[in-house]
Amino acid sequence: MNELFSNRISGVAPSFIREILKVAMDPEIISFAGGLPNRDLFPVQALQKATNDLFNEDGKDILQYSSTEGYLPLREMIAADYKRKGLQISVDEILITNGSQQGLDLLGKVLLNEGDQVLIEEPGYLGAIQAFEVYSAVFNSVPVHQDGMDIDALKETLKTSNAKLMYTVPNFQNPSGISYTDENRRAVADCLLNKKILLIEDNPYGDLRFSGEEKQSFKALLPDQTILLGSFSKTVVPSFRLGWITAPKALMDKLVIAKQAGDLHTNYFCQRVLHRFLQDNDLQAHIKKIIAVYGHQKQVMENAIKRCFPEQVSYINPEGGMFLWVTLPEGMSATELFDKALKYKVAFVPGDPFYVEKRGLNTLRLNFSSVDPDIIEEGIKRLGKVLHELLDN
Amino acid sequence: MNELFSNRISGVAPSFIREILKVAMDPEIISFAGGLPNRDLFPVQALQKATNDLFNEDGKDILQYSSTEGYLPLREMIAADYKRKGLQISVDEILITNGSQQGLDLLGKVLLNEGDQVLIEEPGYLGAIQAFEVYSAVFNSVPVHQDGMDIDALKETLKTSNAKLMYTVPNFQNPSGISYTDENRRAVADCLLNKKILLIEDNPYGDLRFSGEEKQSFKALLPDQTILLGSFSKTVVPSFRLGWITAPKALMDKLVIAKQAGDLHTNYFCQRVLHRFLQDNDLQAHIKKIIAVYGHQKQVMENAIKRCFPEQVSYINPEGGMFLWVTLPEGMSATELFDKALKYKVAFVPGDPFYVEKRGLNTLRLNFSSVDPDIIEEGIKRLGKVLHELLDN
Repeated sequence: MNELFSNRISGVAPSFIREILKVAMDPEIISFAGGLPNRDLFPVQALQKATNDLFNEDGKDILQYSSTEGYLPLREMIAADYKRKGLQISVDEILITNGSQQGLDLLGKVLLNEGDQVLIEEPGYLGAIQAFEVYSAVFNSVPVHQDGMDIDALKETLKTSNAKLMYTVPNFQNPSGISYTDENRRAVADCLLNKKILLIEDNPYGDLRFSGEEKQSFKALLPDQTILLGSFSKTVVPSFRLGWITAPKALMDKLVIAKQAGDLHTNYFCQRVLHRFLQDNDLQAHIKKIIAVYGHQKQVMENAIKRCFPEQVSYINPEGGMFLWVTLPEGMSATELFDKALKYKVAFVPGDPFYVEKRGLNTLRLNFSSVDPDIIEEGIKRLGKVLHELLDN
Repeated sequence: MNELFSNRISGVAPSFIREILKVAMDPEIISFAGGLPNRDLFPVQALQKATNDLFNEDGKDILQYSSTEGYLPLREMIAADYKRKGLQISVDEILITNGSQQGLDLLGKVLLNEGDQVLIEEPGYLGAIQAFEVYSAVFNSVPVHQDGMDIDALKETLKTSNAKLMYTVPNFQNPSGISYTDENRRAVADCLLNKKILLIEDNPYGDLRFSGEEKQSFKALLPDQTILLGSFSKTVVPSFRLGWITAPKALMDKLVIAKQAGDLHTNYFCQRVLHRFLQDNDLQAHIKKIIAVYGHQKQVMENAIKRCFPEQVSYINPEGGMFLWVTLPEGMSATELFDKALKYKVAFVPGDPFYVEKRGLNTLRLNFSSVDPDIIEEGIKRLGKVLHELLDN
């Protein structure tokens, strides 16, 4: 069988993080490893009502095949929300996808030839690494720090790289929780302006800000070169797998062809339910509830870290999103820590999978969105115990 | 922008059939052009009940992220249905996809290098041509006739082709409505046995048989080389985009990696709703209703054709499915007929898009599943009028 596989898939390893998540599913383990929204905040009743209203009023229509581009009124809502945020994006520039992960896949399909270079944040989003790896991309990593991308490193990389594509998560990045400052965004945009390179601004968490000020989108700074990816998974519901991609018309035409060849169209029933939910409910009020809970859980985690972790361990304080990034003392492996922590029934994701090449790193990701405050306290206490045992000897 | 596109997408043209379907959407036009199931047969109430039961009992769970492979109890039901049909397929060999179209995309991704050859039926399913075209496949067409694949042509093609993949729709094929006889299937299997080639048996219509006897699956004849694709779009509901792919474990491991990189997982909410529907309802009884309606509509179309079409026009009488295939006299172009028929407010799909290279063909596809009997009569009468005008001069 093996000799039949394509070159593009032969080199891709199964996801390390999947294995970690399987271990972390043991109900006795306190897991900060996942990347799940808090299920207690799902708008169950409102979605049930939207679904029933649609079945009663439009039962046959919502069950039929539909168009590749996606449900027009839903795309109009997305365009209106961008307008509210000061971005002019027309409905023709919006394609509904199976989560923003499919947006990444379609971009890889439509833009990447074997061996094409892609600029990616270090650490960077694992799903993007996986999506582009399948199209045999070569990655040029650019470090990100607390205030955003390392501009000197970016300039240096751009001197030798002929990348077509740069991938960023400028708000509350997964995995590091960092956000680019406005100044940093302008500097990044200056580096890319008028170059033959497209910038992907993946923004699944942007609405989930619990402190600080909203920052400018790259779409405002680099309008002709920016591709926005969005998702309803973190603000409404993940199981519907509804995201979107915005792209200039010429690129959109190709994305639509690739989408049609790929799966005809995204689940239409759930597009209709989501649209109805958004029509009949106040999304901003719902998001405020999510922000309040995540902000509190982040604070609980931070307080516990201050109390329980050795002082040689540092962390980045996120202004939103779902993740908090921890840096262990130089030379200490987070993967080794993971194995030891499992004995204390606590799990996280070691940093390694978020780097394209480096291994045995001293960084790790903690998720706070899906763990209740008292469990967060207990989990951080356990982790602190392991860290003290390792560092105090 | 154009210089940024990948080689694989640059050569793919927008779908001709999409343009036709846009024209055919004019409500004044009687359209046999679509490929839609009959919306009057959608089990609206039963799906609404399944959805409500789930919201009431399991509201949070059905809204969360889930696994790449798909909902295990749904995969168990698919395995059980195969068992009922005499096929041993384990749950580990089944992956839930966004319609069987995504199964085609994943197979292209995992198996095809640029320029790899794919054997395909002529005429063949447009969606498969599109899916593999995106991976820069080179097609080797093998004609199909009323009883199945042209065995002499297949043998001849296999002498020179080094195809890894052969794509078939052996039951009530789209577009031609033909089905392979058992004898033809055995002959095809004999040709492929022990060769390094995988056979895709795409079977979206297999359950919709209104006459003749059920035929043997290639999976029984070529167990180690056959990949089955299935779909709930034609038997339950299209808008959920739920299909599946079965493949041997080594290939399945790669497909799961590609699926994860492509969209993480298929809409979980609808997997749960469909599973609940299948648990609480008699699918076979539901399918019997569909068969009765489609069989009747096919018969109405056939009777009208006999009455209204010139005798130089022939057709293939399908034993199931949704399509009837018409052959015009040699040299007559179905594309020209299409333009003339539009003036009489009747539409169909000319054969051209179902052939990899040939154009200006004298074949066309008529859909009978989604058109009411009296409209079928009227549409065929109009088409007969145009044909008589063209042929009687």
